[in-house]
Amino acid sequence: MSGKLYVIGTGPGGAQQMTPETRAAVEASDDFLGYGPYLDRLALRSDQNHIASDNREELDRACAALKLAASGRKVCVVSGGDPGVFAMAAAVCEAIDGGPEEWRSIDLTILPGVTAMLAVAACVGAPLGHDFCAISLSDNLKPWDVITRRLRLMAEAGMVIALYNPISKARPWQLGEALSLLRETLPGETPVIFGRAAGRPDERMQIMPLGEADASKADMATCVIIGSPETRLIERAGQAPLVYTPRFITRESA
Amino acid sequence: MSGKLYVIGTGPGGAQQMTPETRAAVEASDDFLGYGPYLDRLALRSDQNHIASDNREELDRACAALKLAASGRKVCVVSGGDPGVFAMAAAVCEAIDGGPEEWRSIDLTILPGVTAMLAVAACVGAPLGHDFCAISLSDNLKPWDVITRRLRLMAEAGMVIALYNPISKARPWQLGEALSLLRETLPGETPVIFGRAAGRPDERMQIMPLGEADASKADMATCVIIGSPETRLIERAGQAPLVYTPRFITRESA
Repeated sequence: MSGKLYVIGTGPGGAQQMTPETRAAVEASDDFLGYGPYLDRLALRSDQNHIASDNREELDRACAALKLAASGRKVCVVSGGDPGVFAMAAAVCEAIDGGPEEWRSIDLTILPGVTAMLAVAACVGAPLGHDFCAISLSDNLKPWDVITRRLRLMAEAGMVIALYNPISKARPWQLGEALSLLRETLPGETPVIFGRAAGRPDERMQIMPLGEADASKADMATCVIIGSPETRLIERAGQAPLVYTPRFITRESA
Repeated sequence: MSGKLYVIGTGPGGAQQMTPETRAAVEASDDFLGYGPYLDRLALRSDQNHIASDNREELDRACAALKLAASGRKVCVVSGGDPGVFAMAAAVCEAIDGGPEEWRSIDLTILPGVTAMLAVAACVGAPLGHDFCAISLSDNLKPWDVITRRLRLMAEAGMVIALYNPISKARPWQLGEALSLLRETLPGETPVIFGRAAGRPDERMQIMPLGEADASKADMATCVIIGSPETRLIERAGQAPLVYTPRFITRESA
């Protein structure tokens, strides 16, 4: 057996945001497992196997990939964005942790990619220019009160907050409640960015103050970035404003 | 005037981690401003201008780049990693914010890249697999008590913590103090990763428990990742262990 398992991310924008080392891993693999729309971004050859599955079956998919690699196949598990941020790398580790001993000796390579918050940030300026955090708003995998507690502590700490998985059909109210909760601590004029499909043809960036931020602007393809009290807007004639968080905090503003 | 300003990141590992859209921006630019070692990663053509400056002169460099772009040049400002994370995109926005009105109409494109914590995470498993934060440990740009307060709140919230700029000749004691402070809240067995030069020939990953973590293992090229109480190790015969943070938090562990 000389199987191999790659865990990769396509980058949010597809081919133009996929690193050369990730592209090389795609070229070298036989079997591809992932959510269908992510696999579609890869433009696979006809001799490469496309094993699409639903986006919510991460652990089953990880186990299937490990079985194929253990049987000697060259296998590629595909996430959108970066595979290490709320994505398949943790599911593959979890599967190895709970799986047969032989899975621990599989030749495993995880390759980093551009994660959604970085692509959204670049579209609008530099909102992640100072300390920030990334929180998944999905309460499928953790209790909602853990999420609200974390949001409160992040706002209290003055962190810029990137929200992944902000909304879905099965989770329609969580983002609205998160925004309400953040309004208790953060100024109403704090900039909020609804960054949809960054880097793709249907990219859409919307910037609005927290006091007016409306959860219905988000969908499953959106990453929401909520500024800190330091985050600033630069108005530009005929162009969208820039949003940035300064590199410094003065003693007075702290 | 038809100047252009790109703000890019090389990715931590150089060419193999630089996206195609970033490579295209490099091809299209005349003048390159950045810290010398980052410019060296680009392998510029002889007709492209290499304007290296010290790593601590970000605002001066941003102003110089904006002046060149305003004069009609195609200019590229170069960060390592991602330009939006503790890097040049915020300095360019700050320069625009405080600069002449005409700088607001410069054709500005910021391109996302792979930031260091993602590359380090991929090398060791998936430590950023659940909620995490990124904090710069440099007290050149913010008061030290803001940093310690944030670290305490992050540990209290159960976030995985990525520390950028952990140490330098001018800031020798801050990382040791940060680790001591985190030991007050987090279990001694919490995994800590000292990830140096991820993706480069001199890459070195060291994993140790927080109780034994020694700040002298870090240098300026290191990104330090401190796990949460959920972060786990998977031992592997003949290989470094995997470190990952599970995708889920159960009611019991919360």
